[in-house]
Amino acid sequence: MINEDFISKRVGIIGGGQLGKMMINEAAKMGIFTAILDPSEDCPASCLANEKIVASFDDKEALLELAKKVDVLTCEFEHISTEALRELEEKEYNVYPKSNSLKIIQNKYNQKKELQKYNIPLGDFIEIKKAHDIELAIEKFGYPAMLKSALGGYDGKGNSLIKTKEDISKAFTELKGDTMPLYLEKYIPYIKEISVLCCIGRDKEIAIYPVAENVHKDSILFETSVPAAISSIVEEKAKNIAREVCKIFDTAGILCIEMFLTEAGEVLVNEVAPRPHNSGHYTIEGCITSQFENHIRAIVGLPLGKTDLITPTVMRNILGEPGYSGETFVEGAYEALKVGGTYLHIYGKAETKPHRKMGHITAVGETVEQAKERALEASKFLKVISK
Amino acid sequence: MINEDFISKRVGIIGGGQLGKMMINEAAKMGIFTAILDPSEDCPASCLANEKIVASFDDKEALLELAKKVDVLTCEFEHISTEALRELEEKEYNVYPKSNSLKIIQNKYNQKKELQKYNIPLGDFIEIKKAHDIELAIEKFGYPAMLKSALGGYDGKGNSLIKTKEDISKAFTELKGDTMPLYLEKYIPYIKEISVLCCIGRDKEIAIYPVAENVHKDSILFETSVPAAISSIVEEKAKNIAREVCKIFDTAGILCIEMFLTEAGEVLVNEVAPRPHNSGHYTIEGCITSQFENHIRAIVGLPLGKTDLITPTVMRNILGEPGYSGETFVEGAYEALKVGGTYLHIYGKAETKPHRKMGHITAVGETVEQAKERALEASKFLKVISK
Repeated sequence: MINEDFISKRVGIIGGGQLGKMMINEAAKMGIFTAILDPSEDCPASCLANEKIVASFDDKEALLELAKKVDVLTCEFEHISTEALRELEEKEYNVYPKSNSLKIIQNKYNQKKELQKYNIPLGDFIEIKKAHDIELAIEKFGYPAMLKSALGGYDGKGNSLIKTKEDISKAFTELKGDTMPLYLEKYIPYIKEISVLCCIGRDKEIAIYPVAENVHKDSILFETSVPAAISSIVEEKAKNIAREVCKIFDTAGILCIEMFLTEAGEVLVNEVAPRPHNSGHYTIEGCITSQFENHIRAIVGLPLGKTDLITPTVMRNILGEPGYSGETFVEGAYEALKVGGTYLHIYGKAETKPHRKMGHITAVGETVEQAKERALEASKFLKVISK
Repeated sequence: MINEDFISKRVGIIGGGQLGKMMINEAAKMGIFTAILDPSEDCPASCLANEKIVASFDDKEALLELAKKVDVLTCEFEHISTEALRELEEKEYNVYPKSNSLKIIQNKYNQKKELQKYNIPLGDFIEIKKAHDIELAIEKFGYPAMLKSALGGYDGKGNSLIKTKEDISKAFTELKGDTMPLYLEKYIPYIKEISVLCCIGRDKEIAIYPVAENVHKDSILFETSVPAAISSIVEEKAKNIAREVCKIFDTAGILCIEMFLTEAGEVLVNEVAPRPHNSGHYTIEGCITSQFENHIRAIVGLPLGKTDLITPTVMRNILGEPGYSGETFVEGAYEALKVGGTYLHIYGKAETKPHRKMGHITAVGETVEQAKERALEASKFLKVISK
């Protein structure tokens, strides 16, 4: 048995933000001990974890201290020193995602090269070492094209859109092309952004969630709707691609695979995240087993839970209201829940900032349209401001 | 608005056992602060609450200290000094259940008298002041009859079955009839035990969950199945009675109403609990809104969530294995979850004792029969022993 005495399993989470908090909620349900490492004393997960270490994410001693407290380590974001994780693995600590998978994934250019090696459908992309490389690539790709930083970007940070020749040197300078690894992506005229959450068990079992449809605003996830409004052929295609992606990475836990659907019905992988993902928050109410429960089950070596959709579900992020910075104040919760079929998640961040992810609202309905209307209606009331 | 600034609402919970823990999990999701009061330093809820007070449940100073930390107080069990709660109410603290409702409910004889006043269908019962009262009552009720302590009983404690004349004085003595309030219940030849969870909002909204079917073993809840195998006529009758019961009590939060179904199709109320209930644990996976989320929503003054059943669901308690006392050790979790459609809840009690409630397992299925088979199969593997 993988896990005969699983209940002695204790989980260490690198990062105590909302994703860490939601993992801990599920771990606690199963009686699993949790410890977190986060630089902030009052991060969202801080009051739920059994133990916490306040330290920088790259503090090797603190990571080792965390590892010693637990049986398995995981992380809530991917920008962690894989060298530090590899050293822990060498000392026989369990780390999921594994450092070799994380290393490939966290460099987005290398990630794409790896996916390409296994014939995963992708848009065209090319490594950029100097500004002139962009000009050459655009001769092939045409305008517009997206220049991306291979390291460290999220929520649109680290991307620069190139629409004309004049943008080229500006974008290269902006993304620090002289010192940072960059790559250029051919513009994909997609009609939908979709994502597929998968969970990989330590016994290599793969569980796949329904395809979710995402809308981004200003490069931040705005709304996720499930089921996605796509044909069953596209649904199957997306799930098959997701399953192939899971086989590439030797790891355990949630993988979120973001994809584009083109007018021609092509499904192209955009990006892979090796952890619970914002576009999977709908699973808390929308599926019997949330992405967080399955992530915990996976990394401690338990069998995975059912991933079926219960009912059409729509998730909207609640971002800090523009113009407000300071102590968090949530208004309109009563009215938002009065809409009906609506569920409130507030992350517990002490300070709000414009566009900061402060919570989300989930709406269920008889149809996706109904769920969408409810989420829209609720979000009109719900505002995170400062007092 | 009842609750314009609801997010400033902080919840104090008297009792930090599994019910308190499950309430906190839901409160945390919504960003609601929690504080608990429990005599045990390492009670199940202790690591999840934002703050804790270690004190006896009847320590008035500690209760006041708890009240001062929060905006609303609730409890996870009903045997709390209503005098202490009333004093807090007089100081304008919000307490749910309200002390006047709790006072009626916690004396089971008075509870029955109150229900009778509002024509709620009940089995025959009579107050017992001396052993001779039992003899007189049995002339009317016949054998067997159940002698019950009006105060403090749960899980069958405080009940004594009277099968013959010889049992009378023994039962009276055992239940300390000289000093404790007792009552006698006519035996109800029921064919099923059912329960209906209700939630009452602070705005008097009432949400009713599907009827659950319960099986007890040795007077401890053994299994809950939903939907109950009853006709739609009985289902409606039970729900209508539950709705009437809700109107009797001026309170907010979950009420669990336990009932008997007789061969003649009569539905008789057995007992009311003013809090989340063991027979409602199935709602965590079985309904989109769990009894714990709705309890929290209700007491902080938020609108209630949907109570529909998602899929047939069966819950089985996991009791401490007979013959084992000491440090808790859970075995068979891997195999139990491998059954599929199964969900594990371990309460985090440091010490196991024979028949102590240590956790529960929930199984979902296409049919109640399938869910029941899965729960049975899983429970064969899952054992809580000591190391």
